[in-house]
Amino acid sequence: MREDPRLRYGGDYNPEQWPAQVWRDDVDLMRRARVNLVTVGVFAWSRLEPEPGRYTLDWLDEVLDLLHAADIQVVLATPTASPPPWFSLAHPDALPVTADGVRLHHGSRDTYCAAAPAYRAAAAGITGVLAARYATHPAVALWHVHNEYGTSCHCRHTEVAFRRWLAERHGDLDGLNDAWCTSFWSQHYTDWAQIGTPRATQYLPNPGQLLDFRRFWSDTLLAAYTEQRDLLRAANPRVPVTTNYVLGDWVPVDHARWAREVDLVAVDHYPSAVDIRAEQQSALGADLARGWARHGDPDGTGAWLLMETAPNLIYTPGGRMHTKEPGRLLRHALGHVARGSLGAMFFQWRAPRGGAERFHSALVPHAGADSRVYRETVRLGDALARLAEVRGTVEARIAVAVDAASSWALRHPGLPSPHLDHHEEVAAVHRALWRAGLSCDVTVGGDRLDRYALLVLPAHYLVDERTAEWVYAHVHGGGHLLATYLSGVADAHARVHLDGYPGALREVLGVRVEEFHPLADDDEAGLSDGGTARIWTETVRLTGARPVATYTGGPLAGQPAVTRHRFGAGTAWYLSTRPDDATYQRLVTRVAGHAGVGPVCPGAPAGVEAVRRRGPGASWLFLLNHTDRTQRVPADGVDLLTGATVVGGVDLPAGAVAVLREPTG
Amino acid sequence: MREDPRLRYGGDYNPEQWPAQVWRDDVDLMRRARVNLVTVGVFAWSRLEPEPGRYTLDWLDEVLDLLHAADIQVVLATPTASPPPWFSLAHPDALPVTADGVRLHHGSRDTYCAAAPAYRAAAAGITGVLAARYATHPAVALWHVHNEYGTSCHCRHTEVAFRRWLAERHGDLDGLNDAWCTSFWSQHYTDWAQIGTPRATQYLPNPGQLLDFRRFWSDTLLAAYTEQRDLLRAANPRVPVTTNYVLGDWVPVDHARWAREVDLVAVDHYPSAVDIRAEQQSALGADLARGWARHGDPDGTGAWLLMETAPNLIYTPGGRMHTKEPGRLLRHALGHVARGSLGAMFFQWRAPRGGAERFHSALVPHAGADSRVYRETVRLGDALARLAEVRGTVEARIAVAVDAASSWALRHPGLPSPHLDHHEEVAAVHRALWRAGLSCDVTVGGDRLDRYALLVLPAHYLVDERTAEWVYAHVHGGGHLLATYLSGVADAHARVHLDGYPGALREVLGVRVEEFHPLADDDEAGLSDGGTARIWTETVRLTGARPVATYTGGPLAGQPAVTRHRFGAGTAWYLSTRPDDATYQRLVTRVAGHAGVGPVCPGAPAGVEAVRRRGPGASWLFLLNHTDRTQRVPADGVDLLTGATVVGGVDLPAGAVAVLREPTG
Amino acid sequence: MREDPRLRYGGDYNPEQWPAQVWRDDVDLMRRARVNLVTVGVFAWSRLEPEPGRYTLDWLDEVLDLLHAADIQVVLATPTASPPPWFSLAHPDALPVTADGVRLHHGSRDTYCAAAPAYRAAAAGITGVLAARYATHPAVALWHVHNEYGTSCHCRHTEVAFRRWLAERHGDLDGLNDAWCTSFWSQHYTDWAQIGTPRATQYLPNPGQLLDFRRFWSDTLLAAYTEQRDLLRAANPRVPVTTNYVLGDWVPVDHARWAREVDLVAVDHYPSAVDIRAEQQSALGADLARGWARHGDPDGTGAWLLMETAPNLIYTPGGRMHTKEPGRLLRHALGHVARGSLGAMFFQWRAPRGGAERFHSALVPHAGADSRVYRETVRLGDALARLAEVRGTVEARIAVAVDAASSWALRHPGLPSPHLDHHEEVAAVHRALWRAGLSCDVTVGGDRLDRYALLVLPAHYLVDERTAEWVYAHVHGGGHLLATYLSGVADAHARVHLDGYPGALREVLGVRVEEFHPLADDDEAGLSDGGTARIWTETVRLTGARPVATYTGGPLAGQPAVTRHRFGAGTAWYLSTRPDDATYQRLVTRVAGHAGVGPVCPGAPAGVEAVRRRGPGASWLFLLNHTDRTQRVPADGVDLLTGATVVGGVDLPAGAVAVLREPTG
Repeated sequence: MREDPRLRYGGDYNPEQWPAQVWRDDVDLMRRARVNLVTVGVFAWSRLEPEPGRYTLDWLDEVLDLLHAADIQVVLATPTASPPPWFSLAHPDALPVTADGVRLHHGSRDTYCAAAPAYRAAAAGITGVLAARYATHPAVALWHVHNEYGTSCHCRHTEVAFRRWLAERHGDLDGLNDAWCTSFWSQHYTDWAQIGTPRATQYLPNPGQLLDFRRFWSDTLLAAYTEQRDLLRAANPRVPVTTNYVLGDWVPVDHARWAREVDLVAVDHYPSAVDIRAEQQSALGADLARGWARHGDPDGTGAWLLMETAPNLIYTPGGRMHTKEPGRLLRHALGHVARGSLGAMFFQWRAPRGGAERFHSALVPHAGADSRVYRETVRLGDALARLAEVRGTVEARIAVAVDAASSWALRHPGLPSPHLDHHEEVAAVHRALWRAGLSCDVTVGGDRLDRYALLVLPAHYLVDERTAEWVYAHVHGGGHLLATYLSGVADAHARVHLDGYPGALREVLGVRVEEFHPLADDDEAGLSDGGTARIWTETVRLTGARPVATYTGGPLAGQPAVTRHRFGAGTAWYLSTRPDDATYQRLVTRVAGHAGVGPVCPGAPAGVEAVRRRGPGASWLFLLNHTDRTQRVPADGVDLLTGATVVGGVDLPAGAVAVLREPTG
Repeated sequence: MREDPRLRYGGDYNPEQWPAQVWRDDVDLMRRARVNLVTVGVFAWSRLEPEPGRYTLDWLDEVLDLLHAADIQVVLATPTASPPPWFSLAHPDALPVTADGVRLHHGSRDTYCAAAPAYRAAAAGITGVLAARYATHPAVALWHVHNEYGTSCHCRHTEVAFRRWLAERHGDLDGLNDAWCTSFWSQHYTDWAQIGTPRATQYLPNPGQLLDFRRFWSDTLLAAYTEQRDLLRAANPRVPVTTNYVLGDWVPVDHARWAREVDLVAVDHYPSAVDIRAEQQSALGADLARGWARHGDPDGTGAWLLMETAPNLIYTPGGRMHTKEPGRLLRHALGHVARGSLGAMFFQWRAPRGGAERFHSALVPHAGADSRVYRETVRLGDALARLAEVRGTVEARIAVAVDAASSWALRHPGLPSPHLDHHEEVAAVHRALWRAGLSCDVTVGGDRLDRYALLVLPAHYLVDERTAEWVYAHVHGGGHLLATYLSGVADAHARVHLDGYPGALREVLGVRVEEFHPLADDDEAGLSDGGTARIWTETVRLTGARPVATYTGGPLAGQPAVTRHRFGAGTAWYLSTRPDDATYQRLVTRVAGHAGVGPVCPGAPAGVEAVRRRGPGASWLFLLNHTDRTQRVPADGVDLLTGATVVGGVDLPAGAVAVLREPTG
Repeated sequence: MREDPRLRYGGDYNPEQWPAQVWRDDVDLMRRARVNLVTVGVFAWSRLEPEPGRYTLDWLDEVLDLLHAADIQVVLATPTASPPPWFSLAHPDALPVTADGVRLHHGSRDTYCAAAPAYRAAAAGITGVLAARYATHPAVALWHVHNEYGTSCHCRHTEVAFRRWLAERHGDLDGLNDAWCTSFWSQHYTDWAQIGTPRATQYLPNPGQLLDFRRFWSDTLLAAYTEQRDLLRAANPRVPVTTNYVLGDWVPVDHARWAREVDLVAVDHYPSAVDIRAEQQSALGADLARGWARHGDPDGTGAWLLMETAPNLIYTPGGRMHTKEPGRLLRHALGHVARGSLGAMFFQWRAPRGGAERFHSALVPHAGADSRVYRETVRLGDALARLAEVRGTVEARIAVAVDAASSWALRHPGLPSPHLDHHEEVAAVHRALWRAGLSCDVTVGGDRLDRYALLVLPAHYLVDERTAEWVYAHVHGGGHLLATYLSGVADAHARVHLDGYPGALREVLGVRVEEFHPLADDDEAGLSDGGTARIWTETVRLTGARPVATYTGGPLAGQPAVTRHRFGAGTAWYLSTRPDDATYQRLVTRVAGHAGVGPVCPGAPAGVEAVRRRGPGASWLFLLNHTDRTQRVPADGVDLLTGATVVGGVDLPAGAVAVLREPTG
């Protein structure tokens, strides 16, 4: 993105939904709120190219000029996430097909197969036109390719592309048969033409096929992205290019791998909980984004951009839209900035009258500017302006490893429990760290670990030889490790390592797990340290490790639940179950303490989130009071939001935020 | 229907399921029970036309003659709700297709697409044959077209017809694009051929398309009906024509609009609750029927006919068949007569040995005539005979507005809560009125309101300019209004009115709603009058109205929940949530009292339903004791069922009914 | 199976999943565990015939020779349950189709339609090749055709075959129309071509069509089996042939009818409960197997073989794999032997690294031979060797009738309750007998009853004339009968018997049921003997019977719930509801006592299962302590497992088993 000392502030702006007279009101309202960046064109294809090859760009010219005149920069999107109706009509073979063979139809968004040649050609076409026209427009600060890549398909084009991808990955059919264990259930392939996508089948599907299908889609969507990126770069190499990640276990995208292909990691984040877990989810989302950014650019600061969040609502899993309490909009936004976002962008600027998302929240709601939400919008703009000096990275000495392939493999049928979930385990340990006041980074197998005292592997199911070496080297060299159940059980093809779980990590952990004992939904196991555990237990035999906590009651009474093992110069902890939040918090505090890592702000009360950004020669302490009462937090510095000088401690009102420039030296 | 002083009594009679020797037994049993009207032929197509163009009508001749000889009139049905197997085999293109593209097959009933030309031709064919043969048969009192119109389809024929309908509705593509807000998600259409039915798609569908698809089906089914009706009328204009409405939110039929095309509103009613709500549902069903009848014939008495109900069972949502308690059959039947039905008709006469509905209840059950059910059948026939003098309309000064389009629009995805339901809100306020002993009529936007003191709009989501004027005029002229949450939020295309909810009703209500706060499933809000509320709350700003009750606790504590606004000569109340039943009952009592409307039978105990029918020069008070103990009800008159004279009050035994001819003058 | 004095012990062995060097380890481990029988080749088609017509059998030669050399016999399977990928590619028309019309694809197992000619031809081909090569191999003790027959399909081949089958069953269309009651809903057929399989349809399907479709599939799968069997027999008539039954209400297989076509009934049994119900389910599974065996061979001992069970896990309905407690593997195995199994076979020998069932439990788990499971495997082998002398049949004087067609018919839509389930009712009364310590056999309508004092009909919904005569003769001749609700209600075409339920059994039971009163999910009815009842109640009128217990409270208060009727020389009890387990236990104790039948081991404490096998001149008492404490059981004999002599009683430790050779004379 173009250099700009300001924090970015704005959101998706869809002028095509409104008559031109509204545009000027929009710009006025944006200026009142200090908005300085808007995303334009995400779903505008049918307006930009109403018929194949006929382009109507004048309105976009006018919008960009208008924004530029108001000193508002533009994230210009390619509109390829929603091909126009004429495309669907002309290319029915490019419509997506489900595993059941149902052809999906136009009527929503994303009704295309990204492996269909006609789609790719049309996408390149409109991207080329936009690149030619706008690559040097002074308003354009960033290209935004597509929107929330995340679809898959089972059409004939997909089948062909999948086979080609498999041939490249496995070399020959022997390789594939071996990787997929096709000797089970007589699935041995003797011709590439016999291989299809994992369509609806009679009974349990092949796990290797499922896993490769996810990987194939991550690579295929990435190719669709890079195709556009390269066209845009060719038109003007100085404008950076990104795409907005959408989070969720269902997305067949390996975000870490994609991070190497974007100029800036941009993330859409929509929490699903309405209580304090919303803030914990936001913190995790931000840490993931920063981790991916660093994975893509190991020498960078991990800067990233929150590209979308809902200003004033939280979508709950049951389909209800929860309205955020007053002040929460600002607190969420500053929480993201605290964790490295270059600013705060929202979906969307102005609420539409109709369309599928007519009730999605907006900075300018249906009620218009005379509304609480727009007033909070203005207040946030003011706050962000006061934080312009903040830079640098988040201070953290703990790294939590995430692994897309593990999350996919743990969603397969035929596992010992229906409740296995890599992302849930990541979230559980991240929540424990958050509650303990411990900052962490997210990391990916193979990344540099030299800045970290403690590495955490939460249900890192797939561990191949290279990843195992990465873990062993960290511990052997003096690092600390906390691995949770199911880590290291299988190899990169999801084949179980034999001779005892957790195969690849047996030696470093000093344990050998012989049998799994997944718990029933309403069952819990007691722990000797007073806590309880859920979801999973197992028979841990010690082969060098010492017990730290044992199970109480049940078939495993008296047997180890948590263990610790000296390995080389380091220590490896193993957690064979999922403890309750309070127990988990105590455990990570203990493990981190053992590794010499303490909380960001010792003495901060529960419910106050503390994050430190450290830049060249300065540091800033973000304090977010998520509770409903005033909290005393021990801290020193100057609060950028109020200008007040804080000595020894600050009284943070309920729901309030302070950003302290800390004393140097 | 032919003039007949008697109340109608009978049900669906399917002689084609039985050998001819049973027919005579049937007629004997009918006569013993005073049955005077039966519906014949509903599902007899494959017996009437076993091969295309070959008709076997002799058996029907014989049945009609037999019935006529026994003075039993006939509702003669066209059998088009279940085309014979030969039709499905010959016209696979006329089989219905689901949104997923699954072609449904023969094997049940209603396996046709009403937009398929072959189906329409075949339906016209058999109807023409029946019209020619039976239009002047002396037994035929009423034509019954088809059965429970309510199917939809996504086949190619539908697609073509849908486009034609859209062109007529919207004029041109600009109109359609505007109505559907296709600027959202790049759905702008440039050719009619691009538009399909709302098939399975990738993500959220377009609300405008969904709403128009429902309207299209209502009109298409209506055209299928009128096609048959016109053939029947042409054969003998003196025999009236109807079709039996099936209730349920899933039915793509605007019953009010259809009421103008039938000669008599006929309704099938199947309650789903087994406790007192069954009786409340029956009362609502009857009031709906009467409201539609009056909408279709504003100068009439609102007479209608209960065409089907289950004699002795209630289908529960979980799939269980609840057996009605003794006496309930009669009480349900008289409850419908109290509310304007010309009689009581049941599905069906004799329980079949097999077929899909072999356990559906019947007046003659599997056990035969030596059974409690048949004995209750005889008893009901006796009771109905005693009520022959009852006529006139139901006395009511409250009108509750229903709106099919609102109910459809509130079922769309992307709304702020998954629990929005126009019919549920209608039922909730109707239940409150029922509990308060207040009679109401059902009305439809635009209907005459001069007889009503109070108009109720329950979640009347769609309010266009014309409907708004109708409401404003009522209140301005001195009427009272009670509108509940989500009324007036959107226009006829389901596009949100801007600048504050409830857009179209802001001025008359004197409020401006800025934000919605839908409640979680297990959440409730407190109300300052001691009640509780569920499902929905919102931020109500007063712009002229006064608060009547406020929220207690939660994010809206102290803010208005119920308001009242003087507007012109009238008063408009706004209810921003769904109160519990007792609170709602108190509220409607208060609002009605303010409007000068009191209960039908002041002093009637809870659980005793009171309805007054008023005809020329006389009135009848129906009293139904739904409780399990004797209840004292203050009333005067002569009980038509017992002949007893009542002065000052009557002791109604548990479950009993009294119908008092009230003293005149 | 070849004569062999030993109990059989082993499981599925899949050498094709492992390199040849592992085979020798396998044989060593088998010998250490005294394994003497393994099933080979079940899913090996793609290894045996990697391309159409090219056979690679050398590896199988080597495996059989290796096993034979180690004195391990082989159950040789035809691999037809999983055609290779080349087959699916070459014959897409042979892939199965769901009721929705979805074509299932290769990727699991069982992706074929058994009615497709190409599939049948290919299956016969590979079977012929195996027969030619191995029919006289000395290792081969038994042929195992296919695996767990249980698929169905709706493709065109199926449609054609279904029509052919219907023509044979019903003779002509009149017969079919009558059987299916096609007069309901205008389904009268006039041409065979009009009839299809019960595909997805608009509303409730035809029950006659559904029932015949199940019967058709049972016969079609049986034809697929016998085709292979005949080929195998032709190659060597001395090697017996079987197939492994899979239990479950969803399986369209009438196992009783199939029993006449197998040389040995072989059953796969997977309990679904984790508590004591697992043992009760196992007991029922074993009794079913023995009952089928005797139905197939009325003069035999009812010997059968447990072909598959999971060594160390229980699959729970929610998808969790429960790990069995120590000792339970052995107890389950001996429980099956107690009830007539010739041995204990498991799925599978060695846990695979990958494939869909990579976490299914195995005798040699992922952890290898140094594991609790393998040690229990060795212990079981030792125990089985000690029981070699046990033979003869199970002693039982109670017969419980099962009926596949009743179980299918009670799964149809349109029944009065969604909770009707023949198998559940069988299980409920079997559990009551189990708890009461009463042994029973399973029987099938028409089987010889001379050895039984008491016949039980649990929800035997379909009773035709022949079956009714069978019941009447039993009771008339002095036998006892216990029939539960819904028995005898319908005929073989699922058409309701008229004039009062339970039609076909009214006279013998001396009752007439007029109305059903199914209970709501959370409802229960009180019984006058202190118990409670669920699911179902009904209005029982006495027409000769005497009340034994009545309902208390509810609409049926004071009316009969359980009745008893003298009929001829016998007594018939009727149970109109489903009592709780304790009440049911008391009831069967009383009914059995009335019939002169007492428990196997009077005085055995609750939770100790006692089964007696009686052979020529000797008897063996199996005692299984399923509780978690030592139990004293009154008994005498020599414990074959320990060699200890028991006089007067034995102290069975928690979870332990004793098998006593009882004193003779």
